[in-house]
Amino acid sequence: MEKTGVAIVGMGTVGAGVARLLLDHGDRTARHAGRTLWLTHAVVRDLEKARDVELPEGVLTDDLQRVIDDPEVSVVVQLIGGIEPAKSIMLQLLESGKDVVTANKALLAQHGPELFDRARELGRSIAFEASVAGGIPIIANISQCLSANQIESLQGILNGTCNFIVSKMDAEGADYSVTVAEAQQLGYAEADPTMDVDGTDAAQKLAILAHLAFGARVDWSQIPRRGIDGLQAVDFKYAKHLGYRIKLIALARLTESGLALDVSPMLVKIGQPLAEVRANYNAVGVVGDAVGPVFFQGQGAGQMPTASAVVADLIDTAVGRTSITFETLELWAKGHERVGLADVGSLVSRYYLRFNVQDVPSVLSKISGALGRNGISIASVYQHDVDLSKEGIVPVVIVTKNTSQSAVDTALEELKSVDAIDAVAETFKILD
Amino acid sequence: MEKTGVAIVGMGTVGAGVARLLLDHGDRTARHAGRTLWLTHAVVRDLEKARDVELPEGVLTDDLQRVIDDPEVSVVVQLIGGIEPAKSIMLQLLESGKDVVTANKALLAQHGPELFDRARELGRSIAFEASVAGGIPIIANISQCLSANQIESLQGILNGTCNFIVSKMDAEGADYSVTVAEAQQLGYAEADPTMDVDGTDAAQKLAILAHLAFGARVDWSQIPRRGIDGLQAVDFKYAKHLGYRIKLIALARLTESGLALDVSPMLVKIGQPLAEVRANYNAVGVVGDAVGPVFFQGQGAGQMPTASAVVADLIDTAVGRTSITFETLELWAKGHERVGLADVGSLVSRYYLRFNVQDVPSVLSKISGALGRNGISIASVYQHDVDLSKEGIVPVVIVTKNTSQSAVDTALEELKSVDAIDAVAETFKILD
Repeated sequence: MEKTGVAIVGMGTVGAGVARLLLDHGDRTARHAGRTLWLTHAVVRDLEKARDVELPEGVLTDDLQRVIDDPEVSVVVQLIGGIEPAKSIMLQLLESGKDVVTANKALLAQHGPELFDRARELGRSIAFEASVAGGIPIIANISQCLSANQIESLQGILNGTCNFIVSKMDAEGADYSVTVAEAQQLGYAEADPTMDVDGTDAAQKLAILAHLAFGARVDWSQIPRRGIDGLQAVDFKYAKHLGYRIKLIALARLTESGLALDVSPMLVKIGQPLAEVRANYNAVGVVGDAVGPVFFQGQGAGQMPTASAVVADLIDTAVGRTSITFETLELWAKGHERVGLADVGSLVSRYYLRFNVQDVPSVLSKISGALGRNGISIASVYQHDVDLSKEGIVPVVIVTKNTSQSAVDTALEELKSVDAIDAVAETFKILD
Repeated sequence: MEKTGVAIVGMGTVGAGVARLLLDHGDRTARHAGRTLWLTHAVVRDLEKARDVELPEGVLTDDLQRVIDDPEVSVVVQLIGGIEPAKSIMLQLLESGKDVVTANKALLAQHGPELFDRARELGRSIAFEASVAGGIPIIANISQCLSANQIESLQGILNGTCNFIVSKMDAEGADYSVTVAEAQQLGYAEADPTMDVDGTDAAQKLAILAHLAFGARVDWSQIPRRGIDGLQAVDFKYAKHLGYRIKLIALARLTESGLALDVSPMLVKIGQPLAEVRANYNAVGVVGDAVGPVFFQGQGAGQMPTASAVVADLIDTAVGRTSITFETLELWAKGHERVGLADVGSLVSRYYLRFNVQDVPSVLSKISGALGRNGISIASVYQHDVDLSKEGIVPVVIVTKNTSQSAVDTALEELKSVDAIDAVAETFKILD
């Protein structure tokens, strides 16, 4: 049987998982690839560090040059996080004639155009299924399986840490800080979870999906984003009462003025697939003009789910499918931007607005006045449990009909000066 | 731009949808294929029949030979149902050097080995994404995206008509016959829905998926199957009370004794993704040893969802991805059977058993005795609303712990002779 030489650069958790699949299940990969995927080098920084997998004699090395110089290695799995040295190493590998498989979303979200252009010039490919939503094959599904469609919208739960936290807050009525601590203890959140809980991770993934699905060239840092830090237990309770759960949603929607992107906690109707995504699972809902709504759910991270995506890419690269896809799709190629970004203010949805007020009757008329002046219709008003009020402050929740974010922003700005409104406590988009 | 000539044989609803995607959205397919997919012939039996799409001059024909003789046609979308003449036409197309894209699950479930062998001999390919679960790209996901995994089990809602009916019975407490009539009126069920409601359609699709996912060569007619005809409203009510919905599930599970296959109505825990699949949607849950559980949901039938799958296959075939996959996977090739079929009696699950009894206390001891003799433990006993009893007959529902189907069958056989048991009214597997 033909052999394809494979190297892994970066032997962290995922790297060890990839090595395990190649070493322990070679028959399986050979069956799907029609050839043996032969692990020749595993490049690490520290040769002494204990690892989660036993490698054959001579495979472990701290010398990247061995990979570069080995003509038998045609595909390299690059599993180094962050921007540098990951970027330089990837360019070096491409230039030495290797195809690359990566899981580094931050690198692609930031330097995709440059890296993909260089790979094209060199006749090489970059596969990146594992960079978004781990075990869910969303990259292949969007770029191949749904290719007959104009994708109209995409809604994702792309960060498992956040979903673990909001699911627990929803189920247990727990506070944010308590839940984060629990997630950290269970290994579902990093010691410093900032990049997860502030929406950065989800925005980087959304930038990649938005490029694939809509042909938009997006700087992830330009995507409006709001994280789950600061969410309050009380809103989960009110949302549930109204028939919703709160989820951190990465949203891309084609509008008349372009592609609207947003990462923020939103209300999702209970019973809708996205609302029922529990624990640390990821999920992506895609609406295509031909296929209608399609929904994918799975583990978005973790050693073996991510390794599953990496090895699928390895097989695709070894058999030649990746290079075909890479060539036809012209990913991140100059001049292939098909849609511009819309102002997120133009994104239309219903809204959940919670006000903390001191005097309900007089305030309601002021709120409805300000909303009305901005063309916002009220669908329902909900005044919750008076026992939650303290020192005369009562929460009032208003659900609006469809309106734009900019109309909501203007109305809330007007209401800031109303004395009897203690605070505009919370606003969420409602995902329909 | 390069052109690939495409013909459609069979211009029913789906054929018209495919033509529409090719004609109205040529830019889109060209972008994903890197070449123009150019519709040259649409072969029909009756030239006079009104169609859902306007074709360019000269495309419509009733002469298949024009396709066969046209060297510019390299891919043919064959959308004729049933076994013959579909099979002969497919062989003729392959022999004339055309790659084939099809949606005909019955043909593949019955004659897959012969057709795929012939295609291989001729160096041609058959793509069949649209044959199972319509718009859900389950074929590509199993055969490519999850290729790093040993798939351990697969649970599908593969028939939209059945899911429409059971979802409505669950939501509205309606009777089976009333609901079928409603489904027919709304176009969700055929005038003669037998093949859908008796599980035939789901079994044919399961045979195809079982081959792809497990390498089993399955004669679909050997798959144990039970349809949804005869389901009673009362069981939906009891199931819901216990926290479950009833769904027609196509199940494949790797066991120690081989691959167990089953198509039958089962209880699925409310909140589990499969339980929340509504209306005429299809869904497939797959568990892989690396990726863990992955879940896919979408429209399983209908003009444009099915056309979406067909055109994705067309693009894959035109760019060369299909031929790579077809070659490496050796689908239905002789000697590539990787697993034998297990006796469905060995399939282990919990069970829902409803007995109609005349005298609860005395009967319960007999039931628990018979179950106990067959090694079946009772998890809970539920005696429902006495107002449902008529003429002294009371329904008793028993939920068992894990047991095998054969143990359940033996125990129920023993209980047939107990006078005070009016009937073993219903048994369902519980899907965990």
